[in-house]
Amino acid sequence: MSQILEEVLAANASYAADFGDKSKLPMPPARRFAILTCMDARLDPAKYAGLIEGDAHVIRNAGGRASDDAIRSLVISYKLLGTREWFVIHHTNCGMETFDNDVMGELLGSSLETATINADGWSDTGKGPGTADGRFVQWLTIQDQEMSVLDDVSRIRRSPMVPPNIPIRGFIYDCSSGKLIEVPGASV
Amino acid sequence: MSQILEEVLAANASYAADFGDKSKLPMPPARRFAILTCMDARLDPAKYAGLIEGDAHVIRNAGGRASDDAIRSLVISYKLLGTREWFVIHHTNCGMETFDNDVMGELLGSSLETATINADGWSDTGKGPGTADGRFVQWLTIQDQEMSVLDDVSRIRRSPMVPPNIPIRGFIYDCSSGKLIEVPGASV
Repeated sequence: MSQILEEVLAANASYAADFGDKSKLPMPPARRFAILTCMDARLDPAKYAGLIEGDAHVIRNAGGRASDDAIRSLVISYKLLGTREWFVIHHTNCGMETFDNDVMGELLGSSLETATINADGWSDTGKGPGTADGRFVQWLTIQDQEMSVLDDVSRIRRSPMVPPNIPIRGFIYDCSSGKLIEVPGASV
Repeated sequence: MSQILEEVLAANASYAADFGDKSKLPMPPARRFAILTCMDARLDPAKYAGLIEGDAHVIRNAGGRASDDAIRSLVISYKLLGTREWFVIHHTNCGMETFDNDVMGELLGSSLETATINADGWSDTGKGPGTADGRFVQWLTIQDQEMSVLDDVSRIRRSPMVPPNIPIRGFIYDCSSGKLIEVPGASV
């Protein structure tokens, strides 16, 4: 058993020991909204947006991007589980701003080890176990945070599966202050 | 401004007011692991697995499925940000067990309103704004929780972009107890 697994199971046992009424929570989100945000370790949407268990759907991926999979999740969220309002929340200092499709293709083609970054950009030792062809994946990197929020809100809005009356709100989470900053023009 | 937006911004202001040293957290996850889990409102991975800000990547979608987008996120997680261990965590009483692709296609073809479920299954009033063709989406529904965890761990393991030495561990979160239950054979 790894140290991380031990720690996770110990934390879980402590959480479950004081589970209380949470066993009775219904499946549909009580506050009827959903958040799409980045997987970044520094972000805790429950804390930064004030959620307790049962409140809201939380969808997360690299960048908080409006991928087809995120839209699949959002459509299930309203169509079957009744959410009525959605937030798209990207953040400052996002890893998705540090590379592009070509860089990722080269890094995966060099090795499957973790790459390193310095002032000149990403580099790879090329000494890991094997290589992979990453050129067929759209990595959904970000050049500009405000633009990525605008793009993603717009992409969700334009999906034919999304009803026109659901508000979609675009924000950037500031990793240096913990604050949510509304992106002008990104709430539709 | 909606009531939800007011509440989210008030909760965020309170979080940011006591942000402390979190402004100094580095981008790579300190505990070098990632969790893929469901968007379900009852799940708080930070609480059920004992995470604080900066600890681990958290990827969430409908079902916690190993979609291409989840694998995109996991590959970025290790290749650029150094995670070394992954958890795939589905849960009991998941909404993804209540329908299949045909049902979702029919519901979206009936209306864009939220559908209702009873003992006979899902139904739709057909009175909402418009309809959509949901037949071209793979909704990634779940028939059996243990099988979906096994399938998803295996799909991640087989990706050529995933190095062979990253442990992938499969669990089910029990919504009635808060406990993580390891799925036999799902840790590879």
